[in-house]
This record gives sequence, structure tokens and C-alpha cells, in this order.
Amino acid sequence: MVPQVLIVGGGFGGLSAARALAGAPIELTVLDRQNHHLFQPLLYQVAGAGLSPAEIAYPIRRILRRQANARVLLGEAAAVDPVAKAVRLVDGSTLRYDHLVLAAGAAHSYFGRGEWERHAPGLKTLEDALEIRRRVLLAFERAEREGDPEGRRRWLTFVVVGGGPTGVEMAGAFAEIARNTLARDFRRIDPRTARVILVEAGPRVLPAYPDELSEKAKLQLEALGVQVWTASPVTEVDGEGVQVGGDRIASRTVVWAAGVAASPLARSLGAPLDRAGRVPVLPDLSVPGHPSVLVIGDLACLEQDGRPIPGVAPAAIQMGVHAARNVLHALRGEPLAPFRYRDKGQLATIGRRRAVAVLGAVRLSGLVAWLAWLGIHVFFLIGFRNRFVVMFTWAWAYLTYDRSARLIVGRPRETGA
Amino acid sequence: MVPQVLIVGGGFGGLSAARALAGAPIELTVLDRQNHHLFQPLLYQVAGAGLSPAEIAYPIRRILRRQANARVLLGEAAAVDPVAKAVRLVDGSTLRYDHLVLAAGAAHSYFGRGEWERHAPGLKTLEDALEIRRRVLLAFERAEREGDPEGRRRWLTFVVVGGGPTGVEMAGAFAEIARNTLARDFRRIDPRTARVILVEAGPRVLPAYPDELSEKAKLQLEALGVQVWTASPVTEVDGEGVQVGGDRIASRTVVWAAGVAASPLARSLGAPLDRAGRVPVLPDLSVPGHPSVLVIGDLACLEQDGRPIPGVAPAAIQMGVHAARNVLHALRGEPLAPFRYRDKGQLATIGRRRAVAVLGAVRLSGLVAWLAWLGIHVFFLIGFRNRFVVMFTWAWAYLTYDRSARLIVGRPRETGA
Repeated sequence: MVPQVLIVGGGFGGLSAARALAGAPIELTVLDRQNHHLFQPLLYQVAGAGLSPAEIAYPIRRILRRQANARVLLGEAAAVDPVAKAVRLVDGSTLRYDHLVLAAGAAHSYFGRGEWERHAPGLKTLEDALEIRRRVLLAFERAEREGDPEGRRRWLTFVVVGGGPTGVEMAGAFAEIARNTLARDFRRIDPRTARVILVEAGPRVLPAYPDELSEKAKLQLEALGVQVWTASPVTEVDGEGVQVGGDRIASRTVVWAAGVAASPLARSLGAPLDRAGRVPVLPDLSVPGHPSVLVIGDLACLEQDGRPIPGVAPAAIQMGVHAARNVLHALRGEPLAPFRYRDKGQLATIGRRRAVAVLGAVRLSGLVAWLAWLGIHVFFLIGFRNRFVVMFTWAWAYLTYDRSARLIVGRPRETGA
Repeated sequence: MVPQVLIVGGGFGGLSAARALAGAPIELTVLDRQNHHLFQPLLYQVAGAGLSPAEIAYPIRRILRRQANARVLLGEAAAVDPVAKAVRLVDGSTLRYDHLVLAAGAAHSYFGRGEWERHAPGLKTLEDALEIRRRVLLAFERAEREGDPEGRRRWLTFVVVGGGPTGVEMAGAFAEIARNTLARDFRRIDPRTARVILVEAGPRVLPAYPDELSEKAKLQLEALGVQVWTASPVTEVDGEGVQVGGDRIASRTVVWAAGVAASPLARSLGAPLDRAGRVPVLPDLSVPGHPSVLVIGDLACLEQDGRPIPGVAPAAIQMGVHAARNVLHALRGEPLAPFRYRDKGQLATIGRRRAVAVLGAVRLSGLVAWLAWLGIHVFFLIGFRNRFVVMFTWAWAYLTYDRSARLIVGRPRETGA
């Protein structure tokens, strides 16, 4: 019997594991709910109408097409049974495995206030990004038709909840849309009067970065016209706006970048989980008591040198490659090797020509950080064609401030507005 | 008082009229349900996963941004009151006009069988195109997971109803997806075994073309692997397939390219309509009895030299420019001038390197017709940027048979499958 290896999730972690298993004497199955791999670090650009979905997503089948030992299944995992060594799918069918790599990632968390989601969508999938784009662009259209100045102001107020990299990137993108892209497209309203407010519960934005870079990021956001509210925990979200303690922001467009929770798939393992629902794994990435189940990426919780390994793409990629090696070790009856994360640095962008970066001992901000960010992200986009088209699209957008993907498509999702 | 000119519809007709009114001493309003102008002749490429929405659509605001006398409104017209000279919107508000240009276009017609729509979506909007793309790509995914050979065959059978240009183009695109794009991406199924069936009620495909070109188009479709069923009126469509008289095609994926009906807005005019719901207009494009209402594009019905002016983009563009001239005539108290359609020819494409064309007395087919088609379509895409990116995307797709826009996005529309 050829050993069956199952990878759940076609994100950075799952795909790296799959590619690292090329040529191995196994039957490999990659299961994902979506038919495409998503370059998530650029998803905010789709929400901001700067890029099209096809520019940051690529069919998983195409990526693994030449890998003879791999097949790709479109489907959603419902539960893992680590004793029977099987994964049950939402459609009721079952996939048996000898080795399982769980890379199902994370979703938004509203800290127990799931009803906020309809008023404040998060950003994890292409659908999320298109929905946020739709809401932001529609808000300007509604403002143009609104006679009442108070109502107009509400349509022209955009709130981003959460000051991590995604929140900072979205706030910057929305400010640029208002100040540059749309500046001269309306007759009744002046989009430059739109307010973008970034609300963060903690004392500073980008809490994972050094203090000085948080401060630089704040200044750069403010230079773009974003209001940055720190130490401002959101206490209520509804169709009319956001409550921040005693303060009220009247806004029709709120987006959520505040919390993530691991995929609910983790629960079915029966192992203890951390507060964010992630699986505490052994240093070799396996689940305690279940050596044939490896957990990687945003779904895994692992400390190194007393600090948690961050939920970023490079960590997921390194874990994926390592999980593949450990699967090969197990197949040969060898012991599993411990994983070691090599921190290559962190980057967050804040609009055109603005970013902050930590690269080893080097701390950068402004244009040079932005160039580093641009180069690294475009380089790592999977698929040469994407890389080329994205580069061209950006060069064009940079020169003209145009955002060609300014399309309002799709029926409205359930909304409180 | 500055004269109020209202254009309903931002398609080829409406936009040409708007641009031809640049600099006129009027207040011009362009009303459209969508925020974007759509290059409809390439919409089938979005359905066929060859192009992204942003590559064939452009914000109407951006197109008219520098035209100082024009404003753009996002909204849907519900009814025209030609006596009160006002258009009522779906949201209840009203727009007054002195001169109205109606360019609201057409939608699908299911010949009184509206219930077929959920089983056989048509192709008029970006949403339609993304829905068709989703269904076609998902069908291959479902086939890959289907154990029963009969069920697999049903997933791998694609029916296009209607042998006009849109039907021919879609059938060709689907055949290429199956034979080339997806050919080596699956493990259990061979996409090359998929059947694409083009069903046409009349005796030949492309009925508006000369006999010999219909025959060439049929041969070219068959060379691509498409089955062409002519003289085959569809009598039933359901979630399991299509009934053609006594024959039954078991298929999970049916698309509709058979009938169009003018926008229901026409009815509110109170004027008599033709069978397709279009407004018979006077030679000057005005509605009999209402000289301040001009109707253009797919919504207008006008004969010239005993033959109806076809519902194609060049006719809509010419009518738009002419309507603008007649508005200016009316403003100066001059009589309206009759419209004269200059037929520049017709083109329909059938996959890579295959097409048929009538250009004046010249009839072309095969590669040379395809090159003519490609050049003309890319050239007329509104917006230089689009033109460049589309050209590049196509050159890439042509060289590699890749279709980067192979993304399944969005929640399913109500479906019978």
C-alpha cells in the first residue's frame, strides 16, 4: 500500500508542504474549500480596488499540475478523527490518511460578538475583499446622492477596527482612494473630505513592531489623513457606527481587522487549544499523542526562545517545508526533527511610498521600507505571470493614482446599513 | 435655466451620447445601475475565465471625469413620464429633464419561461459572467469527485442554448477550457472528454451572417470539438438537463444565449412596442409624439432600407452620437435630423485563431478573420490602460493556453443543480 498523505489547506503552509513532498513515494491529497491559493499579504489591495482577484490568486490545481504524486480536491473538512486516521468532509464523505498535515488557517474573531460581522466584515478571502471594496465604493456613491449633510458625513466616514498590519494597510488604502483616486470624480461631494479612522484597543498600532516603528507608522498614517485612535477599545458596532467607550463614531462603513481565531477544525482533534483556538504542538509540529498529525501555519501554536512564532506567511512556509521533511522521516521510521523558525523580518505598508520594516537588526521606515516591501512581495507572488502583471498594474497605479479595479460587483451581502 | 439633459444607461449608446455633448451649454446627468461601463463584446471572455472583470470594465465616473457639464448618478430608473418630463427611480426619487436619451439596453428573454433562468443563466452583466465561470469550473471539480460514471458524464456535459455570436463564442471558449486549459490538471477525469453542445432552434448558427460563413463557423466549432445541433428548439430546461423535442441532454451546466428583450423601462413610455419589447422610433430616433425623448441602442427599433438596424455596439455608438446632435438641434430650435446607420461589418470569434467576418463586400474566416476581430476589439476597448493589459493577458494566454482568471469566487446563486 502506498502511504496516504493528506494536506488540509492550500495556503502558504499547505502548499509548501505539498511542493516539498514532490517525488516522494506517497499518494498526496491537497484538500481546500477554494480552488485557488491566495497571496493573502496583498488581499487588502483587492479590498482597496488596486488589484483584481486574478492578480493575487492562482488555481491550486495549476500549481500542483506537474506533481505526479499529488491530487487536488475541492471540499471542506468538517472534523478530524486522529484515532481512526480519517478526515470527514462537510458533504459527508471521508478521506483516510496515514499522515495528516493540518494547515487550515484562521478566520476572523469578533470576541464573542458574532453579530458585529454583518456591520463590520473582515478580510480573509477574495469574497471578503470584494465585499469591502463594494461597500467603500458604494459609500461615496451614496454620499453623492444624499441631500442631508449629516447623512453625507456618515457615508464619508470610514472606520477600520484593529491596528495590526491589515488594519494599517486598509486604512492607508482607503485614505488614498479618498484623497487621490476619487478626488475629482464627484460633483456634489469632495471625496477628500472623507474621514478614515483607525481604532486600536492597545496603546499603539503595529504592536508586534518596535516602539519607534509604531510611532513612525502612526505619523505616516496621519500624513495620509488617517485619524489614529489608540487605547480605544470598541464596545459596540451596529449599522449606524461604532461605540468606543463614551465616544460615538457615526459611520456607514466599518471594517474589521481586530481579531483572528484558528479554524474550528482544531476543536475536533480533541487536544487542548489555546485562547485563540490554536493547537499547541510539540517542537516537531506534531499534536501531543498523535504523531501522525502535524499542524502548521496560523492553526499551530508554538513558542521559540520564549516567544510565540508569529502568524505570518514566512513562518507558515517554513513550517510547511519542515512538516514535509517530518512526514518523510516518519515514512522511513526515523524520529521527527524539531522545527526552528528563522525570523527574516517583518514589513507593513502604509500607502504609496510609506512602510515600516524590521529586517534583522535593521529598522526602516518611509520610502526605503516601501521599496523593500514592494520587491519582496512581488517577488514571492507565486506564478511568474502574476508577478509581471501585478508589477505593471502597480506601476500604472503609481504613475496615475488610478485604480482600475474600481468595480462594484455582486449582490449585497446581508448588511446592517 | 440651464437645459437639463438626462441619459439613462452608461453602455455604448449612452456614453457616446454623453461624450458627444461635451462642452454643450447644458447640465447633463448620466444614470446607470452599475458604476462601470462594460465592454460587452468581451464579456464571454470573463465567463470563460480568460479575462478579469477589471480588464473589460471601467468606472463611468472616470470616463466622464473631465467633462465639466456631466454628472454621474448610480441608480436604477423605474419609469419614464414623458408628459411630466421626469424619470422616477427605484428608490422613489425623481429626475426632471428637458431632453431624455434612453439607452437602457436589453436583458435576457426566456420566451415566457422565466423559471429556466435559474438552470440556464444568461450573459449580460459582470455578475452573470462570474456566475457562468463559477458553474463551468465547479462542474469539472464535481466531476473529479463523482464516483458514478453516469453522474460524471452529466457534470462533463455543457450545453449552450442559442447559436448567435454570444452562443458561438461561449461554446468555443468552453471547448478550449476543456481541451487545453484544464487538460492535465485533474487525476480522475480527463477534461478532454467533456462534451460541449451548442443548441440552435434555427437552421444554422450565426443567422445574421451569410450562409457560407454560418457553415464555416459550424466547421470551426466542430474542429474545436463542439457538437452543433441546429434546427433544435429547446422545449424544457431543468436542473438535470435540456429537452430538445424528443431528445434529452443530461447536463449540469446549461447557459442561455438565445433571446434578448428590451429593458422593461420601455413599457412605461406608453408607446407601442415591438415583439422584443423595443421602442419603434422615428428616423430621427425620437419616440412618436414625444420629440424630447430619444431612444437608442438595443432599446430602439428602427428599419433602414427595409432591414432592422442590428443590436450591435457600432450601431449603439452611432446612434448615441446622432442623438447628441439632435439634442443640440432641439436646443437651438432646429429640426431633428434623420439617423443613418453605416454598417462597418460584423465579426464573431470561435476560439483561438478562428473567427468569421463580414467587412463590406469582404467575407473572411479563420485566422485572418480572427486577427481582424482581435485588432478591432482591443483597439476599441475604452481606456488605454485596459487596452494594454488585455493585450498582454491575451498574448500570455495565447502562448500558454493558461487562463489566469480561473477563480471560483462568490456564493452560489440560486441554482437547480
